[in-house]
Amino acid sequence: MIIIMEPSATKEQIDTVVKALRNKGFRIVLNQGDVMTVIAAIGDKRLVEPHSFQSYEGVRSVKLIQEPYKLASRECKQEDTVIEFSNGVRIGGLEKPVLIVGPCCVENDIDGLLRVADAAKEMGCHFLRGGAFKPRTSPYDFQGLEEKALEYLAIAREKTGLLIVTELMDTLDLDLVCQYADVIQIGARNMQNFKLLKAVGKCNKPVILKRGPAATIREFLLAAEHIMYHGNDKVILCERGIKGVDNTATRNTLDITAIPVIKKYSHLPVIVDPSHGTGRRYLIEPMAKAGLIVGAHGIMMEVHHDPENASSDGAQSLPIPMFKEVAKHLNKLIGRIDYDNKHSKEGVSIV
Amino acid sequence: MIIIMEPSATKEQIDTVVKALRNKGFRIVLNQGDVMTVIAAIGDKRLVEPHSFQSYEGVRSVKLIQEPYKLASRECKQEDTVIEFSNGVRIGGLEKPVLIVGPCCVENDIDGLLRVADAAKEMGCHFLRGGAFKPRTSPYDFQGLEEKALEYLAIAREKTGLLIVTELMDTLDLDLVCQYADVIQIGARNMQNFKLLKAVGKCNKPVILKRGPAATIREFLLAAEHIMYHGNDKVILCERGIKGVDNTATRNTLDITAIPVIKKYSHLPVIVDPSHGTGRRYLIEPMAKAGLIVGAHGIMMEVHHDPENASSDGAQSLPIPMFKEVAKHLNKLIGRIDYDNKHSKEGVSIV
Amino acid sequence: MIIIMEPSATKEQIDTVVKALRNKGFRIVLNQGDVMTVIAAIGDKRLVEPHSFQSYEGVRSVKLIQEPYKLASRECKQEDTVIEFSNGVRIGGLEKPVLIVGPCCVENDIDGLLRVADAAKEMGCHFLRGGAFKPRTSPYDFQGLEEKALEYLAIAREKTGLLIVTELMDTLDLDLVCQYADVIQIGARNMQNFKLLKAVGKCNKPVILKRGPAATIREFLLAAEHIMYHGNDKVILCERGIKGVDNTATRNTLDITAIPVIKKYSHLPVIVDPSHGTGRRYLIEPMAKAGLIVGAHGIMMEVHHDPENASSDGAQSLPIPMFKEVAKHLNKLIGRIDYDNKHSKEGVSIV
Amino acid sequence: MIIIMEPSATKEQIDTVVKALRNKGFRIVLNQGDVMTVIAAIGDKRLVEPHSFQSYEGVRSVKLIQEPYKLASRECKQEDTVIEFSNGVRIGGLEKPVLIVGPCCVENDIDGLLRVADAAKEMGCHFLRGGAFKPRTSPYDFQGLEEKALEYLAIAREKTGLLIVTELMDTLDLDLVCQYADVIQIGARNMQNFKLLKAVGKCNKPVILKRGPAATIREFLLAAEHIMYHGNDKVILCERGIKGVDNTATRNTLDITAIPVIKKYSHLPVIVDPSHGTGRRYLIEPMAKAGLIVGAHGIMMEVHHDPENASSDGAQSLPIPMFKEVAKHLNKLIGRIDYDNKHSKEGVSIV
Repeated sequence: MIIIMEPSATKEQIDTVVKALRNKGFRIVLNQGDVMTVIAAIGDKRLVEPHSFQSYEGVRSVKLIQEPYKLASRECKQEDTVIEFSNGVRIGGLEKPVLIVGPCCVENDIDGLLRVADAAKEMGCHFLRGGAFKPRTSPYDFQGLEEKALEYLAIAREKTGLLIVTELMDTLDLDLVCQYADVIQIGARNMQNFKLLKAVGKCNKPVILKRGPAATIREFLLAAEHIMYHGNDKVILCERGIKGVDNTATRNTLDITAIPVIKKYSHLPVIVDPSHGTGRRYLIEPMAKAGLIVGAHGIMMEVHHDPENASSDGAQSLPIPMFKEVAKHLNKLIGRIDYDNKHSKEGVSIV
Repeated sequence: MIIIMEPSATKEQIDTVVKALRNKGFRIVLNQGDVMTVIAAIGDKRLVEPHSFQSYEGVRSVKLIQEPYKLASRECKQEDTVIEFSNGVRIGGLEKPVLIVGPCCVENDIDGLLRVADAAKEMGCHFLRGGAFKPRTSPYDFQGLEEKALEYLAIAREKTGLLIVTELMDTLDLDLVCQYADVIQIGARNMQNFKLLKAVGKCNKPVILKRGPAATIREFLLAAEHIMYHGNDKVILCERGIKGVDNTATRNTLDITAIPVIKKYSHLPVIVDPSHGTGRRYLIEPMAKAGLIVGAHGIMMEVHHDPENASSDGAQSLPIPMFKEVAKHLNKLIGRIDYDNKHSKEGVSIV
Repeated sequence: MIIIMEPSATKEQIDTVVKALRNKGFRIVLNQGDVMTVIAAIGDKRLVEPHSFQSYEGVRSVKLIQEPYKLASRECKQEDTVIEFSNGVRIGGLEKPVLIVGPCCVENDIDGLLRVADAAKEMGCHFLRGGAFKPRTSPYDFQGLEEKALEYLAIAREKTGLLIVTELMDTLDLDLVCQYADVIQIGARNMQNFKLLKAVGKCNKPVILKRGPAATIREFLLAAEHIMYHGNDKVILCERGIKGVDNTATRNTLDITAIPVIKKYSHLPVIVDPSHGTGRRYLIEPMAKAGLIVGAHGIMMEVHHDPENASSDGAQSLPIPMFKEVAKHLNKLIGRIDYDNKHSKEGVSIV
Repeated sequence: MIIIMEPSATKEQIDTVVKALRNKGFRIVLNQGDVMTVIAAIGDKRLVEPHSFQSYEGVRSVKLIQEPYKLASRECKQEDTVIEFSNGVRIGGLEKPVLIVGPCCVENDIDGLLRVADAAKEMGCHFLRGGAFKPRTSPYDFQGLEEKALEYLAIAREKTGLLIVTELMDTLDLDLVCQYADVIQIGARNMQNFKLLKAVGKCNKPVILKRGPAATIREFLLAAEHIMYHGNDKVILCERGIKGVDNTATRNTLDITAIPVIKKYSHLPVIVDPSHGTGRRYLIEPMAKAGLIVGAHGIMMEVHHDPENASSDGAQSLPIPMFKEVAKHLNKLIGRIDYDNKHSKEGVSIV
C-alpha cells in the first residue's frame, strides 16, 4: 500500500499515519520528495481496510500495490484451473473450447427446447443452457417457468447427454437449482450479490460467473474470490459485454480484450457470450470467432427454435439452421487452433 | 412502438411484421419513406416483448415510444407521493427535506453509534442509518454484525426517537430486517436483484432504492416498478453516483441532474447520497447543497465517531464535529428554500 | 513515480530498471515485499516519459505520485487566479459569479441577437456569447456565419457594453477572432487540439476552455497547462457535461462535482454550462443553481430570441422571457451567497 | 423523423408542430395513442435541424429514423470502397489485410527508424507509420521532430518502398504533410476537429481517420462524412479503443465489434490499432488476430527498435524481434483466411 500525503501535510500528520500503520503491523518506508511525502506500507492488506487511511488528515490518496484478490490470482496458482465433468468434458487450460448453447429462457414448448438440444448435440456441443428464473428489467416481461423449466432441462439432458447450465437468482432457490443443474450461472446483474456468491461458494457445483456490465477486471475477479473464499474453486468467468460509449449499434460493448487480460491475472477458465455481448444476431459469429482466437475456453450462444416468438432475447438468438452454420464455422476454427504447444496464458496459434 | 425496416427489406418482410403485430393486437400505421419503411404499432407494449420484433428478417431497429414503467410514472399519478412515518415525519412532495445520517456500518462499539445518534438528533435529523449486512467488494473486508447491529440500531432508536434505515441484502433476511427497520434500504449493487425487489414489494415498509452505478434513469424507475408492481408503493429513490469518466478524483460521478429528471418522470420521492456519490469527505457539504437546491427530498450522509478507525468508508464519512458544521449549513439552506408556492416538479426557490 | 514489478520479476530485471532510473537522475527507494518489489523513484518526472518504464521486462505497472500539471495546480499557486476585464468585470476567486448568455450560433437575423443582448444587459449579465464558427457533428448542419457573425457580435457589444465570448476552431482563424472577441472559447471537442491550445497560449486574450466529454479532471487540467505553458495564464475552465450512463434523459451528464474538485486542485476560475450539460431547457435553471451553490465562478447559458427556429441547439436554449425568469432566480441566489468570509476553495455559504 | 409529444400536450401544441413540419416540406402521419401522440415526419432531414423540434412546447422527444450520414453509408454505395496505391497495394473490400507498422514517434535516431522499416519490409508489410507532429496530453512530453521527421520517413520510403502514414494535427501543416505522406492520419483526439476534416477533405490523399475515444459509431461515420462531403472519398476508418469501464488493466477498451458493425453500415475500409487500443505489448498479438478474424482490412501496430528508450508509447510498442514473431503469426492467420467467396460485409472464414 502506498499512501501519498498532501503537499501541505504537516510533520505531525505524517507521523500519525506512520504510527497507525506500524500499529497495524506494516513495515514502513518513507520517501520524502521535494513536493510531497510518500509512505510505502509493506505487509498484508487484509489486516486493514486500506481506504480507511484516506480518512487521516493530510492524506491525498491511497494506492494498492497488490491486487486485492488472492485465490483467483495467477500469483497464488500458476497452473490453469481445469474443471472436469462427470462425462469427461473439461473446461480451461489447454482444453478444446466448449460450446454452450440454448434459449435465453425455457418456455412452455418443450418440443422447441428438444429441437435446440438435438441440434446442439448434432453440432458437437456439450452444454445446453436455458433460463428457469429470469432477471427481467421490467416486471411486465416474462419471468421464467421456474421448476417446470428445470424439469424440461432435465428431460433434454436425459435425451441428449448434454450438461445443463441454468441461472440462480436467489439464495432461496439454491437447493432446487442444484438438484437439476450441472453448472450454476450467476447473471451479470448479480455479480455483486454477495449473499448469492457466498451461497454458491458453499455448494460444489461449477459456477459460470458473468461479468457485471460496469465491472472492472478487478471487481470481476473479486466476485470470483467471494465464491472461492467460501470453498468452491470451480469458477468459470464469462465476459458478456460492458456499458460502452455506443448503445445504439449494439446492446453492450463486448470486451474481447478481457480474455487475454484475465488469463494473465487469473488461472480460472474464461468464456465469451456474444449473444448478450452484442444483442445482434449478425454479430454472434464474428464475435464468437474473436473470442476463440484470443484464447477463450468456451462460447455461450443463444439458440432458439423460433426467435420471432421467443419470450425474450429473440434478436440475439440464432434460429436453428443459422446456428448449425455458425457452429460449423466455429468448429472449423477450433480445429485449426493449436492448443498443444503453448502455455494457455499466451493465447492460441493457428495451424 | 416504432419498427424501422432495413432499406433492403422486401414487401414480404414488411407484411410479415405487420401481420404479426396485428395478431398481437396492435393498430398499425405504415409510413413508407423514400429510403425505408417505418411501422408505428399502437397499443399496449405489455402484450409483447417489443425487442422480439428485432428478430424478424428485414427489421433494422425497434424504438419504444412510451416509457416502459407505469406505476412509477407521472403519467400514471400526477401528484407527488409523500410517505408519512408513525412519528409524523414526511418525505416527498413539498415537504421539508430530511437528513439521514449514520455510520456506513454498525460496529462493535455501541457507544460510538449512540454518539452519532445523539449528534444527529441534536442537529434535527430524523433518520439514523447503519449497515448490519454489508455488501463488500472483497471477501476479506468486514461483512457486518448482522442481527447484533440491528439490536444496536434499535437501542439507538429507543434513546433518540430517530427512525432506522438499514440495508437488506438477501431475501432470507427479510423478516429479520423488517423486525427492526423503519425503512429498508436496497443497495446499488442489488438494484436489479429482482427477487429482492419482489420480496420488499410484498412487505409494507418504506424502501430506499439506490441507483445502480451504471443504471439509466429508465432502468432505475423500472427497478422501482418491480417493487410497486408487487404491492409496495412507498419507494424512495436515491441517487448515489454513477460510473463516469474519472474515477481518480472521485469514487463515482454524482448525477445531480438525475433529481430534476426523476421529478419530471416520476412522482416518487428522491434523495441524494453525497458520501457514496463522491467518496471524499470534503465534497459531502457542497454536493449535499447541490442536491437540496435542485429539489432533493433528503440527504443521506455517512457520519462516524472515529472515521480513521471505521471498518468501512472512513474516507467518505464525516467525523461528528464536522458533521455538526455541515448539518448547520444544510439546515440554513433548507430554511432558505421556498417549498410553499411551487409544484414540486419545478424545483425549489430561494427566499 | 512508483514502479511495481511483477511477482515473477528477476533480480536482473529489477536492477536494470533501477539503473535506468538512476541514469535519468532519480533517487531510488527500493521496497521489497513478500510478493513483489516496488521501486519508488524520486525526482522530476519531466526528465522522462514515465510510461516508458512500463516497457522494461518484469514491470507490472507505473504509478504517478504527483499530478503531471504544474502551472495550473494549487501547489504551484495557492491564491486564486482572478481575471479582470477592461470594464472592471472580474472572474475567479471570491468574486461574484458572472452570467454569460447568448445564442449557440449567431444567425443572419441581427435583430434577434440584439434582443438577446438587450435582455442580457437588462438582467445584469456581463458577457454575450455566440458562435461564429460552429463545430457540427454533421456536415449537413449549419456551420456558422464566420466573420459576419463576429461583426454582429461587435455591434451588440457596442450597443450594450457586454463583453464578447466566441469560439475559435482553427489556428488559421486566430487573428480574426482576436480582433473581435474579448474571450476566446475552445470547444469541448477541441480540448485536446494541442496546436490550437498552443496558439491561444501565445495570444493574451482570456480563454474559456471547455472540458472534453470524456476527459478526466487530470486531462482537463493538462489541457489548461498547454495554454499556460505557452504563456497565457488567463484560463477559465468550463464544465459542460461528460458522457455518462444515460444519454436518453439528458444529452450529457453534467459533472457538478467537478467544480469543487477543480477548486481543490487548481487556482483557475471554473464555470458551468448547463445548456450543453443537459441538453434540455427545463434543466437549465436547477443545474445553474447547483453550479452556483458549489462555488462556480460563472454560468454560461444559451438564450435565443426564437428557439423553435434556431439553427442549432434550440432545445437547450432559453427563450427570452424564460431567460429573464431564470436570471432573476439566479441573481437572487447569487445575492444570498456569502463570498466574503471564506476561502474560495471551501465553497460558498448561504446567508 | 419521429416526434413524440408529451402525454399532457394540448391539441394546439400538436397542431403547431405539425404545421411547422409541413411548412418545412415534410409529409405527416399522425398516430394518436391512448397516452400520447406520435408524429411521423417523412422527408429529407437535411431541410431542418431535427432537434430544433425539441424546442416546441409539448414535445417530449425527437427520434431520427435514418442515419444522418449519407456518402459513408452502405445505402448510398453497396459495393465496398477499395483504395489503391501507386505501387498496387489495395485496402478494403475482399483484399488481403495490410500491416501498417512503425514507431509512435519518429526520433532523432534515423538508424533506428530504418531498422524498423527493414524489418517491416522483411515481414511483408506495406506501410510504415511514424509521427512527425505528436498530440501529447502533457506539454512537457516530446512533441515530435516535425519536418525533420517527415524527411526521415521519406528516406525510409526510398530505401524500402514502404508507403508512409503520418499524422496531421493542424490545417497549417497540411501542405507540408502532403508533400511527404502517402496516407494522412487524423488522430483520435482530432476526430471532431471539423476544420481539419474539411482540409483533408479537399486534398486527394487517402486518410486514416481514428475513432475518438468516446465516439459512437454514428459520430465516427459522421466525421468520415465531413471528409467525403468536401470531396475526398478515400477514407479508412481505424478503431483504436474507447473509454470503457476499466482503465487499469488496459489503457482503452478495444471495440472489436465495431469492425463488423461498421462493415454493415458503411462501405469504407476499416482497420484496427491494437497498440493504442490496449496500451500493453502482450495484448497486441491476440487483439490483432481478433481484428483480422472479424474482417478488418488492416492492422496498425507500433514497433520500435528500442522501446525502453522510446520518446513515447514504449509500453505498447513491439521490439523488433517480437514484432517479427507477431507478424509471422498474423501472416499465417491471413493466409488461412478465405476472402474469395464471401461478401465483405459477412466477415471472413477460415480454410
